[in-house]
Amino acid sequence: MKVVVVAGGVGGARFLLGVKAALGLPPIGPAPDGSPHEITALVNTGDDVWMHGLRICPDLDTCMYTLGGGIDTARGWGHAGETWTVKAELAAYGAEPDWFGLGDKDIATHLIRSRMLRAGYPLSAVTEALCDRWKPGVRLLPMTDDRVETHVVVDDPDEEGGRKALHFQEWWVRYHAELPAHSIVAVGAEESSPAPGVLDAIAETDAVLLAPSNPVVSVGTVLSVPGIRDALRKTSAGVVGISPIIGGKPLRGMADACLTAIGVETSAQAVGRHYGSRQTSEGLLDGWLIQRGETADVPGVAVRPVPLLMSDVDATAKMALAALDLSGVDVD
Amino acid sequence: MKVVVVAGGVGGARFLLGVKAALGLPPIGPAPDGSPHEITALVNTGDDVWMHGLRICPDLDTCMYTLGGGIDTARGWGHAGETWTVKAELAAYGAEPDWFGLGDKDIATHLIRSRMLRAGYPLSAVTEALCDRWKPGVRLLPMTDDRVETHVVVDDPDEEGGRKALHFQEWWVRYHAELPAHSIVAVGAEESSPAPGVLDAIAETDAVLLAPSNPVVSVGTVLSVPGIRDALRKTSAGVVGISPIIGGKPLRGMADACLTAIGVETSAQAVGRHYGSRQTSEGLLDGWLIQRGETADVPGVAVRPVPLLMSDVDATAKMALAALDLSGVDVD
Repeated sequence: MKVVVVAGGVGGARFLLGVKAALGLPPIGPAPDGSPHEITALVNTGDDVWMHGLRICPDLDTCMYTLGGGIDTARGWGHAGETWTVKAELAAYGAEPDWFGLGDKDIATHLIRSRMLRAGYPLSAVTEALCDRWKPGVRLLPMTDDRVETHVVVDDPDEEGGRKALHFQEWWVRYHAELPAHSIVAVGAEESSPAPGVLDAIAETDAVLLAPSNPVVSVGTVLSVPGIRDALRKTSAGVVGISPIIGGKPLRGMADACLTAIGVETSAQAVGRHYGSRQTSEGLLDGWLIQRGETADVPGVAVRPVPLLMSDVDATAKMALAALDLSGVDVD
Repeated sequence: MKVVVVAGGVGGARFLLGVKAALGLPPIGPAPDGSPHEITALVNTGDDVWMHGLRICPDLDTCMYTLGGGIDTARGWGHAGETWTVKAELAAYGAEPDWFGLGDKDIATHLIRSRMLRAGYPLSAVTEALCDRWKPGVRLLPMTDDRVETHVVVDDPDEEGGRKALHFQEWWVRYHAELPAHSIVAVGAEESSPAPGVLDAIAETDAVLLAPSNPVVSVGTVLSVPGIRDALRKTSAGVVGISPIIGGKPLRGMADACLTAIGVETSAQAVGRHYGSRQTSEGLLDGWLIQRGETADVPGVAVRPVPLLMSDVDATAKMALAALDLSGVDVD
């Protein structure tokens, strides 16, 4: 079976563990030889940033480390056994920015990536090369090889009535999404193209799942790459989303701040309607999973309540199975 | 008093500690406010190399860390309290080269340098910025802002009778200078210019000292930058060299392999003659310090035997004082 998952970082990575398990694959590491299953993750790259001369791809790396067995499972991002010597030393130099969690092991990944990018390799090829080591068992495709970076427009504290745009990472990591966002813009998205393999994967898949990642800055950014939304609308596979909102609150992260910025209520129903039905002119969904015990009315979409907490791989696998079932495929 | 020192890495840095002490300055850290002394080091950059996308300047960094109090004093290079997480992680990726001692603290320096170089700052400005933190108490000038890299021509093991050129670092660090060198070439030197401040420092100094650094790949490479040799020959200051050869052996490092490659015997006399007298058409020296108990005949050069071992800062300061005295300046 072929499954395409649209994913962000921490939530997307955990969901992918469950999708692998749902298909009977080991959640961590490569699929056994001869496995009939092929999972392709279309990963958000709007969080990517150049920092200290290094190209950092938080969502791709979180997926790669998580699925490859290298993640710090307690923190959910970064490396197990990470050290922080370089960061401390950069701070001793007074080098900016100093608010980003740049671990030493992580830096090795960024060094290899940056060197390859500067040598002319596209991000998709770089990601494939890095995955040669990690063997995530999922084909990790950046949504695009082009430079797309999410920026957040906030009040400018230095100018009465003025506004300024922060890179998403600065807003998210430095300011914890506490500065009210007037708007969120995926800079460069309009001129971007899907990375090689993205459109083919969507066209040839048996099911599409939208992970319970941030609907604005993760899934939304993937959808902002011209061609991806159209391909999702046209694929013969069913498209099922999983709500990242449970009980009116984001499962993790600060998705509410992002939803507020785009004028969408923080509720499973509102996010489902934001994605919309494939039966409308712009919508995406055939099915929408919400938390058991809740209700949501999303016209033209089959809504199904199931347990949504990704508390462990088994729970996540059950959720992924429910999503696959709702998409219309038959999982043994 | 103004003193110019032509220097390489470990030996040059230790010698500079002694020059500072000889002038009554604290060997480590900045000169006191109002100090009348100004020491300028013209530092070899022929060992510099791009590695993993980082610009590494071993001799500048060794001088900077040593004089700024950050050096690993036992090893003589790299940082005190260094860690090696990034290097191990690069190796886990199979990234080449894997034979270079790239420490985590060191990487912070290289990240800042590489970012500034890519932003268009010349190496001299980058070095000044890095020294803002380390406060070496010596003005560290790269010999040039241009890219000059020493390469060593050796037999090609893959081709009978063939030869190939290795970057100096590969020959030195990976092969421990054990592959016989047919020739040593400072690639890019012919088209290079002295860094800003180099020629002025030479013209305005009271004394020039050639540190007991490698005469071929350290001092020799500095001299290969067009304009530097001429400026040294024309300065009104005395020029005194300190032999890096004691008892027919290099003080440290593998200078003998380099001298053999350029057809110079490994002896204090031969190296003195190689530098030559300012009274000849190409020579540099007014004075030449050799190890006490030895003799050397260098026509046109005042040879003085003194204790040359840089066993501690006091011993090195005495040696530096002897060099300054031989150059004709009066040190209180």
